[in-house]
Amino acid sequence: MEALHVYDTTLRDGAQQEGLNLSVSDKLAIAGLLDDLGVDFIEGGWPGANPKDTEFFERARTELHLRHATLAAFGATRRAGSSAGEDPLVAALIDAGTSVVCLVAKSHVRHVEQALRTTLDENLAMVRDTVTHLVAAGKRVFLDAEHFFDGWHLDRDYALSVVRTAHEAGAEVVVLCDTNGGMLPHVVEAVVADVIAATGARVGAHCHNDTGCAVANSVAAVRAGATHVQGTLNGYGERTGNADLVTVAANLQFKLGLDAITPESFHKAMHVAHAISEITNVPAYSRQPYVGASAFAHKAGLHASALKVDPDLYQHMDPALVGNGMRTLVSDMAGRASIELKAKESGLDLSDRPDVVAAVLAEVKALEQRGWTFDAADATVELMVREALEPGSTSYFEVESWRVMTDSSALGGATSEATVKIVADGARHLAVGEGNGPVNALDHAIREGLTKAYPEIEKLELIDFKVRILDASHGTDAVTRVLIEMSDGETSWDTIGVAGSILAASWRALTDGIVYGLIRQGVPRR
Amino acid sequence: MEALHVYDTTLRDGAQQEGLNLSVSDKLAIAGLLDDLGVDFIEGGWPGANPKDTEFFERARTELHLRHATLAAFGATRRAGSSAGEDPLVAALIDAGTSVVCLVAKSHVRHVEQALRTTLDENLAMVRDTVTHLVAAGKRVFLDAEHFFDGWHLDRDYALSVVRTAHEAGAEVVVLCDTNGGMLPHVVEAVVADVIAATGARVGAHCHNDTGCAVANSVAAVRAGATHVQGTLNGYGERTGNADLVTVAANLQFKLGLDAITPESFHKAMHVAHAISEITNVPAYSRQPYVGASAFAHKAGLHASALKVDPDLYQHMDPALVGNGMRTLVSDMAGRASIELKAKESGLDLSDRPDVVAAVLAEVKALEQRGWTFDAADATVELMVREALEPGSTSYFEVESWRVMTDSSALGGATSEATVKIVADGARHLAVGEGNGPVNALDHAIREGLTKAYPEIEKLELIDFKVRILDASHGTDAVTRVLIEMSDGETSWDTIGVAGSILAASWRALTDGIVYGLIRQGVPRR
Repeated sequence: MEALHVYDTTLRDGAQQEGLNLSVSDKLAIAGLLDDLGVDFIEGGWPGANPKDTEFFERARTELHLRHATLAAFGATRRAGSSAGEDPLVAALIDAGTSVVCLVAKSHVRHVEQALRTTLDENLAMVRDTVTHLVAAGKRVFLDAEHFFDGWHLDRDYALSVVRTAHEAGAEVVVLCDTNGGMLPHVVEAVVADVIAATGARVGAHCHNDTGCAVANSVAAVRAGATHVQGTLNGYGERTGNADLVTVAANLQFKLGLDAITPESFHKAMHVAHAISEITNVPAYSRQPYVGASAFAHKAGLHASALKVDPDLYQHMDPALVGNGMRTLVSDMAGRASIELKAKESGLDLSDRPDVVAAVLAEVKALEQRGWTFDAADATVELMVREALEPGSTSYFEVESWRVMTDSSALGGATSEATVKIVADGARHLAVGEGNGPVNALDHAIREGLTKAYPEIEKLELIDFKVRILDASHGTDAVTRVLIEMSDGETSWDTIGVAGSILAASWRALTDGIVYGLIRQGVPRR
Repeated sequence: MEALHVYDTTLRDGAQQEGLNLSVSDKLAIAGLLDDLGVDFIEGGWPGANPKDTEFFERARTELHLRHATLAAFGATRRAGSSAGEDPLVAALIDAGTSVVCLVAKSHVRHVEQALRTTLDENLAMVRDTVTHLVAAGKRVFLDAEHFFDGWHLDRDYALSVVRTAHEAGAEVVVLCDTNGGMLPHVVEAVVADVIAATGARVGAHCHNDTGCAVANSVAAVRAGATHVQGTLNGYGERTGNADLVTVAANLQFKLGLDAITPESFHKAMHVAHAISEITNVPAYSRQPYVGASAFAHKAGLHASALKVDPDLYQHMDPALVGNGMRTLVSDMAGRASIELKAKESGLDLSDRPDVVAAVLAEVKALEQRGWTFDAADATVELMVREALEPGSTSYFEVESWRVMTDSSALGGATSEATVKIVADGARHLAVGEGNGPVNALDHAIREGLTKAYPEIEKLELIDFKVRILDASHGTDAVTRVLIEMSDGETSWDTIGVAGSILAASWRALTDGIVYGLIRQGVPRR
C-alpha cells in the first residue's frame, strides 16, 4: 500500500467557513504551523482566481520554509470549448510554482449539464486535457472529483469514467469528494471499494460534516482502500465544515495503527490547533476531539473520586500523546473530591481541612447560582481556597472607588479615561489611566495606582479578555461575565468577574488577576 | 423489529458538560422542549444522588405535562454486599415515580474490581437483584452497561454475562455504552451484532464523541440491530460530549429511512436546539449538522452563482425539513453574485445597477480588512446597499457627540450615565440615560434623544448584544467587534460595529440598528 497522504485544505476549503477571513500573512503563518504538525500536503489556495491567493503563492516562494510538507495549488479543469494551454487559470496554476496541483472536476452528470453547462463528453475532454497538460509541465496532479458520491448514485458509469479518464491521463490520486456532505460511513466504504475495484486508480477522500460523519466517513474510506485523506484544521469549512484533519489522523494513528503523522508531531497537535484558532479568530471549540480544552476534562463527582484510583479507566488514550492533559473541574456537580484535587493542582493540601473544602464548595455553589463559572478560572478558585485557609491572605490592597469616562471622538472612535482610589502599603493612591476602551483605561489606572506599593506589578500583562453576556434575552440589562488571562512572561492564569456592569465585572477579574500574579511571584502583602 | 427508541439524556449525562449548570426550572423547561421535539424518553436525572434531581422529579409530577415522551429516572445497581430492597438510592428511584428506570451497571472486569472494588460474581448479583426488584415494583428497566465496548475487548465472556443477566432478570433494553468514547463505527457494528447474536437481548447504544464518531457509532449500532439510541441535544456532555441526538435521529430518518421522530416534529428541530442553547447558555454551534446557523449557508462565489441554477445541487437535503433555511453570505470570497442575492433577500433589485454592486463590494472588502464581518449582520449590509443606491437615504439623524461615565458602587457593582447630543428633525437634542452598564446607559440616552423626532423608536427593543475581542494577543488594546440584535416585536435584525473602544463599536451597531428599524417601519427621514 502507498504511504498515506495527509492533505490539508484549511487555507482553501477551510477558508470558506462563515466568519473566517484570512489575510496573506495569516495564511503564511498557518502554513508554517501545518508544517510543524507534519501534514504531507498544504493546499495554499487558488492562484489566479483571487489576488490574495496569487500573492500567497508569490510570497510563499521566499517567506515559507517548509521542512516536511509539500505545497499544493488548487484550480479547475480548463473551460469548456477551449484548450488547456490557452486557459489563463491553468497557466496561473503552473505559475504558482508548486510541485503539486489539485484540480477540481465535475463527476456528477447534472452538475456537468446544469452548473457547468457543457456536454458529458466535453467534461471528460476537459479532465483529460488539463491533467495531460499539467503532467507535461512537470506537475504531480491530484484530481478532486466534486460531488462524486451523489454522482455515483445517479450515474455510476459516468462517475467512474471521470476517475478512469483522470487516472489514464496521469493523475496520481483521484479524490472522491462528498461535496454536499450527505453520506454515511457504510456508503462511503462501499463506493470507495467499488471505485478502486473498477478503475485501479489511487483514491482519496474529501468529506464534509453535514451528517456529523465527516471523520467517520474519512476513516471508512481509508478502511476501504483510500490512501489519501483531505481535511482541515479544527474542521473549518463551509456549512458544517470539513473533516477535522487532526481527529482523522489521530483515529488512523491511535485507533487503526496506521502511520498518519509522526508521533513527535502529534505532541504538537493541541498547540497547533489552538494557535491556528488564534490566527483565524474562530474561538477554539472546547469539545473538539483530542485537542479540545474539555477533551480530557472530568466533571462528574462519580468520576472524580474514581479517577484517583486509575485515570486510564476513564480516558480512551493518554492525552499527552496529542499534547493535551487530564483536568478535573470544579462545579456544583462535583463534590468535595474535586475541590481537593483542584487545590492539589495548585500545591495546596486540603486533605486534613474538611472545613475549608466545605466553605469553598459553598461559595462556589452560591456564585454559580449568580452566573459565575469556575471551569475556566482556576486562579479565582485558588484565591478562594487561599482566603478560606487564611482569611486576609489575599487582601493586597483596598479599593475606595473607581470611575471611567468615555467620550466620542472624530471618525466614530472614542477615548476613555479612568481614575482609581486605592489604599495599599499604608497610603492612599490616586491614579489616572487612559485607553482606547474603558477596560484598557481601568487596567492602566490600577497599575499606576499600585506601582508604588507593588513595583512587581510591572511584570504582569493582560493578554486576553473575553466577554459573555448572560441571559441575553434582556439585551444590555443582562449580567456580564468577564474572563481575563494574565501573564508574568512565563506562565499565564485566568480569573473571572460577573456583574450587571461589564466594567464592574472587568474590575473584579482584573484585580483578582493582579493579586494572583503577586502571590505567584512570592510578593508579600504591604 | 421493535419501534426505535429515541432516548434523550441531556438532563443527566449532557449536564456533565464543562460550563453547563442547570437549575430545576431550566431542566423542566428543557424537558418540555424535548417533548415538543418528539423524543420517546427523557432521562431527568439521578433522584437521591443530589437534591436538585430529587426536586426535579417532585416538581415534574405537577409541572411537567408530557404529550409524547416518557420520563425516566437514572440510578445505579445496589451497593455491593447489601440487598436491593434496603438500598436507599434504589428506593429513591422507585420514589421518583417514573414508569421507566435506567440503571447503570459495570460490564468491564477492571472497573468491577478496581473502581467498584467488588467481585465479578457480586457485580452480576447486583445487576440481577436490582433489575428484579425494580421490575417487581412495576418499572420498565433499561440497563446502561458502562464501558461496555472496552469491557468486551478485555473480557468478552464477562461483558456478555452482564447483558445476559440483565436480560434474564427482565431488563427491557440493555444499552451498550462507549463511556470513554474511543470506538470507531466498524467496531461498534461488530460488537453490537455479536451481543445480539450471543444473548438475544434487545440492545441500545450510548456513544461519546472522543473520536469524533459519536453520531456515526450510533448509526452503526442501529445498522447492526440496536433499536434504542441515547444522546443529548446539541451533543452536550462530558469531555467531547455525547452523540448529538438530533443529528442521529435525522440521519436515521432522512438517510436510512427509519422512523425516528415524526416528520412534523423534525420541523421544530432547529428551534428546539436553539431554545435549549438559550437555556443552557452554551452558545449555539453554528457548524452543527442540520440545525446550525451555518448548516445550509453558502459563501463561495463559485457556489453562489451556481445556486441560482438549482439549489438542490448544492445541499444534501431540504433545510426546511429540520426547520432550517438556505442562506447566502456576503464576504470577500464571494463576488458580485452574493451581493446581488443578498440585496434580493432584502427586496432590492440590483440586476441593472452594477455600479452599486461594485461600490458595496469594495466597502465590504475594505471593512473586512479592519475586522468587520458581515456574515451575521444582514441589516448593516442592507443599509450599505440602500446608502449606495440613494446617498443620504439612511441619514435619519446626525450625532454631535456622546459620553458615558461609569462609577463604582458598593458591593462590587457600578452605575453608568450617558449623555448624547443629536441633531434630528431640524433641532438639537440633548439627552441623558442611566443603566447598569455603559452600553445600557447609551441605549437609554439615544432613545431619549430621538423620541421627539422619531416617536416610532418606542417599538424597537435591543434583544441581544455580543462582544468579541479581536486580536486578543494585545489584551484590552485590541479591536472590539460588537453584534447587536434588535426587534420590533415581530421580526429581528442584526447590525455590527467594530472599533478600538467597545463603546464606540456599540454606538455604531446601536445607531445602525435603530435606523434599520425605522426604515423597516416605513418611517420617513425627518
